[in-house]
Amino acid sequence: MQFTAQQIATLIQGKLEGNPDAKVSDVAKIEEAEDGSLCFISNPKYEEYLYTSKASVVIVNDSLELTKPVAPTLIRVKDAYSGFALVLEKYNEMVAGRGKTGIEQPSYVAPTATLAADVYVGAFSYIGERAVIGKGVKIYPGCYIGNNVVIGDNAKIYSGVKIYDECHLGCNVVIHSGTVLGGDGFGFAPLDDGSYKKIPQLGNVIIEDDVEIGANTTVDRATMGSTIIRKGVKLDNLIQVAHNVEIGENTVIAAQTGISGSTKVGRNCLIGGQVGIVGHIHIADGTKVNAQSGISKSVINMNTTINGTPAFDYKSSLKSQAIFRNLPELQHRLQKLEEMVQELNALLITQNLEYKK
Amino acid sequence: MQFTAQQIATLIQGKLEGNPDAKVSDVAKIEEAEDGSLCFISNPKYEEYLYTSKASVVIVNDSLELTKPVAPTLIRVKDAYSGFALVLEKYNEMVAGRGKTGIEQPSYVAPTATLAADVYVGAFSYIGERAVIGKGVKIYPGCYIGNNVVIGDNAKIYSGVKIYDECHLGCNVVIHSGTVLGGDGFGFAPLDDGSYKKIPQLGNVIIEDDVEIGANTTVDRATMGSTIIRKGVKLDNLIQVAHNVEIGENTVIAAQTGISGSTKVGRNCLIGGQVGIVGHIHIADGTKVNAQSGISKSVINMNTTINGTPAFDYKSSLKSQAIFRNLPELQHRLQKLEEMVQELNALLITQNLEYKK
Amino acid sequence: MQFTAQQIATLIQGKLEGNPDAKVSDVAKIEEAEDGSLCFISNPKYEEYLYTSKASVVIVNDSLELTKPVAPTLIRVKDAYSGFALVLEKYNEMVAGRGKTGIEQPSYVAPTATLAADVYVGAFSYIGERAVIGKGVKIYPGCYIGNNVVIGDNAKIYSGVKIYDECHLGCNVVIHSGTVLGGDGFGFAPLDDGSYKKIPQLGNVIIEDDVEIGANTTVDRATMGSTIIRKGVKLDNLIQVAHNVEIGENTVIAAQTGISGSTKVGRNCLIGGQVGIVGHIHIADGTKVNAQSGISKSVINMNTTINGTPAFDYKSSLKSQAIFRNLPELQHRLQKLEEMVQELNALLITQNLEYKK
Repeated sequence: MQFTAQQIATLIQGKLEGNPDAKVSDVAKIEEAEDGSLCFISNPKYEEYLYTSKASVVIVNDSLELTKPVAPTLIRVKDAYSGFALVLEKYNEMVAGRGKTGIEQPSYVAPTATLAADVYVGAFSYIGERAVIGKGVKIYPGCYIGNNVVIGDNAKIYSGVKIYDECHLGCNVVIHSGTVLGGDGFGFAPLDDGSYKKIPQLGNVIIEDDVEIGANTTVDRATMGSTIIRKGVKLDNLIQVAHNVEIGENTVIAAQTGISGSTKVGRNCLIGGQVGIVGHIHIADGTKVNAQSGISKSVINMNTTINGTPAFDYKSSLKSQAIFRNLPELQHRLQKLEEMVQELNALLITQNLEYKK
Repeated sequence: MQFTAQQIATLIQGKLEGNPDAKVSDVAKIEEAEDGSLCFISNPKYEEYLYTSKASVVIVNDSLELTKPVAPTLIRVKDAYSGFALVLEKYNEMVAGRGKTGIEQPSYVAPTATLAADVYVGAFSYIGERAVIGKGVKIYPGCYIGNNVVIGDNAKIYSGVKIYDECHLGCNVVIHSGTVLGGDGFGFAPLDDGSYKKIPQLGNVIIEDDVEIGANTTVDRATMGSTIIRKGVKLDNLIQVAHNVEIGENTVIAAQTGISGSTKVGRNCLIGGQVGIVGHIHIADGTKVNAQSGISKSVINMNTTINGTPAFDYKSSLKSQAIFRNLPELQHRLQKLEEMVQELNALLITQNLEYKK
Repeated sequence: MQFTAQQIATLIQGKLEGNPDAKVSDVAKIEEAEDGSLCFISNPKYEEYLYTSKASVVIVNDSLELTKPVAPTLIRVKDAYSGFALVLEKYNEMVAGRGKTGIEQPSYVAPTATLAADVYVGAFSYIGERAVIGKGVKIYPGCYIGNNVVIGDNAKIYSGVKIYDECHLGCNVVIHSGTVLGGDGFGFAPLDDGSYKKIPQLGNVIIEDDVEIGANTTVDRATMGSTIIRKGVKLDNLIQVAHNVEIGENTVIAAQTGISGSTKVGRNCLIGGQVGIVGHIHIADGTKVNAQSGISKSVINMNTTINGTPAFDYKSSLKSQAIFRNLPELQHRLQKLEEMVQELNALLITQNLEYKK
């Protein structure tokens, strides 16, 4: 990319201070910027870098008050961060290849599949029978879209995603490489001889609009009914979502977390990485879960923060963790106290007092 | 699907009570059933739903005693759950596409590979040199089957599975999308300069009959010899099985668990999700491991249940966990006791008793 | 493979003792060896097996002193382990298929991509626009190499690897199946209505020379700049490396570990499996981290070993863990002590001593 300060100012409707012809060809953090870099300063603690930065253009908040002269061209907007994000977005749209359309060969599109306008199907991708692919959908190379799958408008399915039969994805959904949607739920009934019989998994997975799912995550199909990822949910990489789970709107879950079967996670939750949640429980709306926690029972109250395995109130758990570290000292204090009480007791006995242990 | 109650009764050899022409077009839980739903009641605690359910057909145990009139058509069998599972299975067989055979184009089958009758090879799948594919095997689109791989009769290899050279899979094995079998074990020898030299991984992976493995799981090949998954084992998604591990018959392991190199897991174990097991140990037959546990030494006694990191006896660990939660209170009690003993001591000194701390 | 003892001795420049025509056709551990096995003994504790082993050829250290007659042919070298590894390596090179070159059809190579000499591109692999593939690189079937990706000489990219646009891989890099490099970092800005706006991820991933990455691991692209895996790093399977992370030279990380955004891991670290590391911290060079630990703040001192969640000094944490197991006993002791002190106190009161609680 190459933009002038003026072009950027126009794009984000900002007020320009300095050289309107300053050119930027990459983006950088303010503290690492070079000639040609575009930066932003949103957090006041980074303002100090402004006076020594080699950046060519810096987007700043309207409210910023300069205390010294600055070399870079400044663009003032109400919210520097949003302004910067907008530039990145425009840049992203311009990046080569992201705008591909058409059916790349060789690929496999079942004759009964329906593809809307402006779809991209990458080479080596497979679209099953009766699949319905919405407008502007991009399916990168090497994907598998099973029979009867429905994908909403403008979804992006990155290379190597596998979607089993019958799953439904909403509009603007983004699925990153290697993610598997709709694999069989993990259900087996024990038989008398110690072996197991598979319980057929007949449901599907429903992913609502505006969901983004990272790489190599797995979302299993329901035994019956649907495993449901509600509107606006963001899942990171390598997450496990078991059969019949439901994740509420706008909940965000970090990498390597696992949710066991039939658990319902509320909306607007923030769940850290490597968290484990047992099956058949409810997590209240707005729950925050610290990384590596293990949740073994329902979270009833909304907007609480929990931590630990098994997880409980965050602040209390930090206290317990702090004492855990000092357990050897605690044990030592207990032992000294035991000795002292024994000696006190012995002393009283020598005084012919009647106490006996 | 659309079945009549009569068709289902005939299929599962049940005794019909009610309208033989009642039609079902989906399956549901008894408490969520609608008109057209097929349900079952196996657990007596769900019997209450029977009297208010909108289900069209319900499969129940022979032994069920009605206490009120019911609207749905009933089908009585000895074991309602098994009867229901049988219906699902039949339905599954009828689902479109699951019965595919033949070699879909474009695909790559090495001239030295051997394919038995009724095999399905999906488009974009690759079958290496001297691979041997058994009768009725289904290899979905986009799989990689390396050189000299052997796959037993009726195995199902879902889309995007990668099987490295020399691995052997038994009959009726099911491998879900994205799983990797036979990647190199993680073996590196440290050199004097701090770098590492790769230890060649020459073994393979053996998956015995009736094993099912979930999505995006990884099973590494042995350094020498074989990493072995015994008959009837069920592995969930995103599990790591390191080189030279052996997992005993009918052991079931939940998602995101990891087993380090050369560990032998016994038969009929039940291992929860996100469990970690160190290398070079033995886990006795019938061991149950709670989710998120970390096993740092061999489990010697059979049929025990363990929990925690490091894991120990389940019930004891629950007690320790309960006290962990109360550590701040415990610390407070200890402190009060220290103060009290100090005061007692001081008192005795004022009484000219000889005790000194 | 079939080698004679003489061929092996020549290959590794060892001194032969016994029958030079002894034939080996597989490799085995000394304690499990059969007729036809090649073994090595590096650790003295395995020497006892030498006298009863059925192995045909055993590689031993020069320094080994025999105490009894042995049946196998011996080959003496300075370091038996290295000698053995060398044989394995040569064998590996000979294994069928590992030496493939050329462009297998059908595959997709963009017209603007540049492929050096002796490259192998497997069927169903996709090479994007302006990608640059070095000499001797092997790209197994079903890979996706995005636009502008650079891969250094002699890299091995196993089947089903997905590399997003702009990522750079060094020489001799090995990437196992299903691994995803360069997926979007997990960055979303909260909006007032509770939903999230994606922060465009414009950076890339840089993998330096001699790195090996296991199967189904994910390394996210940086928001800006690069996520960097330094020279000689070894990553196991199912690891999560978030955006803007940097991992120092020759650091080794076991399976299922996750590293959050912007964290810098030093060089020569050894990190166990299922470890979680929070974002925006530094881990000092030479840090050792026990499996399943959770690191919540920077590790400042080099060459320390840590354990637990939250992680602290390894030896201290083992003591705390031991006491954790005994918490019920500790609580019981505390309770007895409380009772005893109460009784002592009561006694003193009966003696008309003034102390009152």
